[in-house]
Amino acid sequence: MKIRFIEREVLKERPDQNALGFGKYFTDYMFMMDYTTEKGWHDARIIPYGPIQLDPSMAVLHYAQETFEGLKAYRRNDGNVQLFRPEMNARRMMKSNERLCMPKVPEDIFIEALKALVSVEKDWVPSLEETSLYIRPFVYANEVALGVHPAASYQFVIILSPVGEYYKEGMSPIKIWVEDEFVRAVKGGTGFAKCGGNYAGGLAAQSKANQAGYAQVLWLDGNEKKYVEEVGSMNIMFLIDDEIVTAPIDGTILPGITRDSLIHILKDWGYKVSERRLSIDELMEAARTKRLKEAFGTGTAAVIAPIGELSYKNEQVQINNFETGELTQKIYDELTGIQWGKIKDSYGWTVEVK
Amino acid sequence: MKIRFIEREVLKERPDQNALGFGKYFTDYMFMMDYTTEKGWHDARIIPYGPIQLDPSMAVLHYAQETFEGLKAYRRNDGNVQLFRPEMNARRMMKSNERLCMPKVPEDIFIEALKALVSVEKDWVPSLEETSLYIRPFVYANEVALGVHPAASYQFVIILSPVGEYYKEGMSPIKIWVEDEFVRAVKGGTGFAKCGGNYAGGLAAQSKANQAGYAQVLWLDGNEKKYVEEVGSMNIMFLIDDEIVTAPIDGTILPGITRDSLIHILKDWGYKVSERRLSIDELMEAARTKRLKEAFGTGTAAVIAPIGELSYKNEQVQINNFETGELTQKIYDELTGIQWGKIKDSYGWTVEVK
Repeated sequence: MKIRFIEREVLKERPDQNALGFGKYFTDYMFMMDYTTEKGWHDARIIPYGPIQLDPSMAVLHYAQETFEGLKAYRRNDGNVQLFRPEMNARRMMKSNERLCMPKVPEDIFIEALKALVSVEKDWVPSLEETSLYIRPFVYANEVALGVHPAASYQFVIILSPVGEYYKEGMSPIKIWVEDEFVRAVKGGTGFAKCGGNYAGGLAAQSKANQAGYAQVLWLDGNEKKYVEEVGSMNIMFLIDDEIVTAPIDGTILPGITRDSLIHILKDWGYKVSERRLSIDELMEAARTKRLKEAFGTGTAAVIAPIGELSYKNEQVQINNFETGELTQKIYDELTGIQWGKIKDSYGWTVEVK
Repeated sequence: MKIRFIEREVLKERPDQNALGFGKYFTDYMFMMDYTTEKGWHDARIIPYGPIQLDPSMAVLHYAQETFEGLKAYRRNDGNVQLFRPEMNARRMMKSNERLCMPKVPEDIFIEALKALVSVEKDWVPSLEETSLYIRPFVYANEVALGVHPAASYQFVIILSPVGEYYKEGMSPIKIWVEDEFVRAVKGGTGFAKCGGNYAGGLAAQSKANQAGYAQVLWLDGNEKKYVEEVGSMNIMFLIDDEIVTAPIDGTILPGITRDSLIHILKDWGYKVSERRLSIDELMEAARTKRLKEAFGTGTAAVIAPIGELSYKNEQVQINNFETGELTQKIYDELTGIQWGKIKDSYGWTVEVK
């Protein structure tokens, strides 16, 4: 693939690595590529980061034909930069795009674009402990017309944002609100796709939980509001007795890459991992009787978010005395060790950016 | 409300009224207004129609925090221009925005903005039989940040598009595909809101139906896939024996303004109108036994879309010999008569634009 490069005249000032936050600063360049039904994907280019011009009638502003991905580039101690399982993001985006009737970005184009942009912006990958360069590929419909139909033109864009240490004062447990009014997804819907609509629809429950003093929402299935699905925008795992339980990938939850990686590691460690339906009643009973030993959310941003409390229908249960569990810490150390190159990657998950 | 006006230097050429299509041409001006959590809604302005600049990290491109409305301005025979129940659109948008954690546009601001813009663009309202000026108000999140949270800033925009006669060769029945795989909405979700995500999620079923030779999808409820909900982006009504049946407004279907207007008229005409759950089995059985006399979709764009065939699980049933029914035609004539000012508006639904 030929990638045009348009240089910017003045480079940005780099932000303080101690105060990066999440998704607030963006690098000097972005990747962009166009799609039309006639020409397919074309005109790959790396250009100065800056505003996109959208006609007010463009489909993305009205009908949310838009998908995205999220991954990170990590600075290793030896100074080199690596990605973590980028092909998984490429494949997931293909599934998202298919569900939303959008053209797929071929895996090789996705990976090449990613590597080319990160390579240009290598100096932006921060080096402080647990910082990284967040990568946000996204595709949106930019056809100019108000009719409701799959658009005839799209843009594939990648932007980069240096992000901070997720846990400022060490990993500490969060409180989770079990949502029994709002619904995130149902079979036959878009729950498995990383598309805008899922996130917009989830804000109301998130706000409700925040107002009640809870950090995140635990979603139940949309049909019976009985089975545990995912938490906020993360997957969720429970250690009940000596079984690790997580919701199965069956069309309503996001197939998380962190989730998948942890399942591999946990199985290799000899744990019994069950991808099965878990009812909220079984979960609450396990918490009451202390058979629920640990719980944690899993996702690219936080990697692992230990859960210290669940609130469901006016009942609050604590998990592991509101402390980060032993397994939670161990699996966090292992995965982040591989991602930042401190531990040998025996899975072949990391990809160096030259 | 003070509305700034920025004049454009060169006005556009007007399109041929015989070939307007839907949402292809846009007028010379658009309305725009900003919202920030600090200042609330501010800086109302009518400016030349043209591109909006969006930072690539803006919330609307990733998390689909976006809602819209659709209504029309009609050219009466006496040359005056009128709107149809615009306050209903204002109120529905408030409900949509609430569900998506977006600031509400107050009803008076919504209406005033609408009237001001249509007034400026009055000459764009076409005069050919059954043409109109489609009005598309929309709100989208434009905060620059990748965190998933309700955005801190928004833009309210209104654009106008002259649209053609919907039925080029008279109203003729369409074939409907009853969808039993994909789901549009479920209680607790966003089905009642006019938000982008609902439309993006609906494209896959629409494409499937089109490929099978069907014009639109009839959605079933998301839990049991048993009860009839809405068709494409319209509500749907059935005349079974002498009862008119339509799905109740209970959180999963869009509360259509055409739907509401027709219910008023039909009741005034002495019809029994039941807003009740109707199972697809009951509907198919009524069609088989010819107790299903007529069926039609209702919405702003087409007003009334007569339905001539239903296809459900490999069974096809015809309705009224694939002809537009008597009641369907009569209610179409009545409603469009009021909208275009040919029939006295005894309901007080029309609002003249000075």
